[in-house]
Amino acid sequence: MRRMKPLVNFVATLILMLAIACHGSEHGVNFNIFPLRMKTGSGGHYIPDVSCLSWRVGVEAHNIIDWKTVPQECEGYIGNYMLGDQYRADSKMVCAQAYLYAKTLNLTRDGRDIWVFDIDETALSNLPYYAHHGFGVEPFDRESFNEWVPLGIAPALPESLKLYNKLLSLGIKIVFLTGRPDHQREITAKNLKNVGYHTWKKLITKDPSYVGKTAVTYESAERKKLEEKGYRIIGNIGDQWSDILGTNTGNRTFKLPDPVYYIS
Amino acid sequence: MRRMKPLVNFVATLILMLAIACHGSEHGVNFNIFPLRMKTGSGGHYIPDVSCLSWRVGVEAHNIIDWKTVPQECEGYIGNYMLGDQYRADSKMVCAQAYLYAKTLNLTRDGRDIWVFDIDETALSNLPYYAHHGFGVEPFDRESFNEWVPLGIAPALPESLKLYNKLLSLGIKIVFLTGRPDHQREITAKNLKNVGYHTWKKLITKDPSYVGKTAVTYESAERKKLEEKGYRIIGNIGDQWSDILGTNTGNRTFKLPDPVYYIS
Repeated sequence: MRRMKPLVNFVATLILMLAIACHGSEHGVNFNIFPLRMKTGSGGHYIPDVSCLSWRVGVEAHNIIDWKTVPQECEGYIGNYMLGDQYRADSKMVCAQAYLYAKTLNLTRDGRDIWVFDIDETALSNLPYYAHHGFGVEPFDRESFNEWVPLGIAPALPESLKLYNKLLSLGIKIVFLTGRPDHQREITAKNLKNVGYHTWKKLITKDPSYVGKTAVTYESAERKKLEEKGYRIIGNIGDQWSDILGTNTGNRTFKLPDPVYYIS
Repeated sequence: MRRMKPLVNFVATLILMLAIACHGSEHGVNFNIFPLRMKTGSGGHYIPDVSCLSWRVGVEAHNIIDWKTVPQECEGYIGNYMLGDQYRADSKMVCAQAYLYAKTLNLTRDGRDIWVFDIDETALSNLPYYAHHGFGVEPFDRESFNEWVPLGIAPALPESLKLYNKLLSLGIKIVFLTGRPDHQREITAKNLKNVGYHTWKKLITKDPSYVGKTAVTYESAERKKLEEKGYRIIGNIGDQWSDILGTNTGNRTFKLPDPVYYIS
C-alpha cells in the first residue's frame, strides 16, 4: 500500500499535466462561472455573502493581501478555475498584453534589454502539487512542497512559454528571478530546459543571506543589481504582487493569475 | 419630440438609480457570468478568443492599461456586470477589506489620520450617464459628460457610503480628492451631501494649473501637500489605478471595480 502511494501520485500528476497541456492548446470553450455563496465566517477574515469570484478578483487587484489560505468555501471554485478554461483565457490575455507592449518598443538589440520572469506559477506550474493539497485551502507545507520541487516535473505554463519565445525573437534576453533557494538551482534549470525554456541570460535563485527578508526586498535587490550591471528591465512578469512591486520593477509589469497562494 | 428627450432620459435615469439602490440593499442572488467570445479584431487591440471576464480582470489587475473604450463585443457583458449583483459583491468585498484593515489600526484620534476618497465611481456613481453611452464602448464625450455632472444627481455607491460612515466612526477624517475641475466644486459638494456624504475634512477639486498633466501627477502632488500639512494618509480608495499609484499613495490602497473607463 505504501509503495502504491508514490505511483498513484505520479499517475495523477501525469493526468493533470495532460489536462494542462490540452487546455493550453484548446481555445474556445465558454466557461460559466458560478460564484459560490461564502458562509459567514468567524474572526472577521471571511466575508459573508461575497462570492469566490469577488475573492479571486480581489486577490488579482491587490485588494486582498497577506492571506494564508484560500477560503475553505472556495476550494471547489478555485479547483475548477485552475483546471479549466478561464485560467487559460486569463493567462493568455496577460501574455498577449505583454507581447503587444514588447513589440511596440524600439529595442537597441545590444543584449542589454531584459525581461524578468518569475518561475513558480509564471514559467512553471505547480498545479500537480496544489491539486493534491486542496488548491490552496491547506496551510503551506514547506516540507511537502520541497519533496515536489526536486522531482523537476513541473509543466510549463503554455501561454508563458509562448511569450518567452516571442520575446526572445524580439531580441530580448530573459532573466529568471525566483524565490526558490540556491540548492534547488540545478533541478530548476533542468526542469526549465526539459519543458522548453531552452535559454536564459541569468537564472537567479535565492541566496541564504536573504532568509528572513520579504520577497519584495529580495527581488528588488536583485533587480537593482541587474540595472547596476547595465541591464534595462523592459518588462517583468510574475504571479505574485511581490514579483512586481518594490524598486527597479521594470518599465512595465504584468501579473499572471494566482488565486492559490500569496507570497509577501 | 425634442422636448420629450430630456424627460425620457430623466425617467430612465430614475429607473437606473432605483436599480442601483435596490441592488445596494439586496444581498444574496447568485449572478451567473457568461463571458462573451471576443471576435478577432484588427490593429492588435482586440485579442482573439479571450473572454470579457478575462478583459475585466485584466483591467482590475493593471494588466490592461491606457485603453480608450470597452471592446465592442463586451458592451452587453459590461452592462450586465454594472447593473447586476457581481459589481455589488465585488465592491462590497473591497470595502470590507478596507474596513477590516482600518479597524486593526492603532489610531491616535488627533484628527490627522485621513482616508483619501476618489469621487467618480468611488463615492458617486455615473452609471446613469454610462448606461446611455454604451457602458464605455463609446469614446468619452466630455461635453456630454459635463451636461450630466451639473445635474448633481449621481447616486452614492452603497458600499462606499457604508465604508465612509464606518471610517468616520473610527475617528478617521475623509478627504475627497477628485479630477473634477474647480468649477464643478459646488455642485459636487451638493451632490455628495444630498446622497449621504455629510462631512469631510477637505474636498479637493482640480485646479486649472494641472491641465495637461496626468491624473497620477495631479493626485500625487495633492496627496504630498496633505502630508506636508501633517496629515497621515492611512488609506486611499479609488476606482482608477491612477487614484492609487504615484507618490504619497497612503499606507494601503484599495481599488474599486471600474471596467467602464480608464484615466491615466
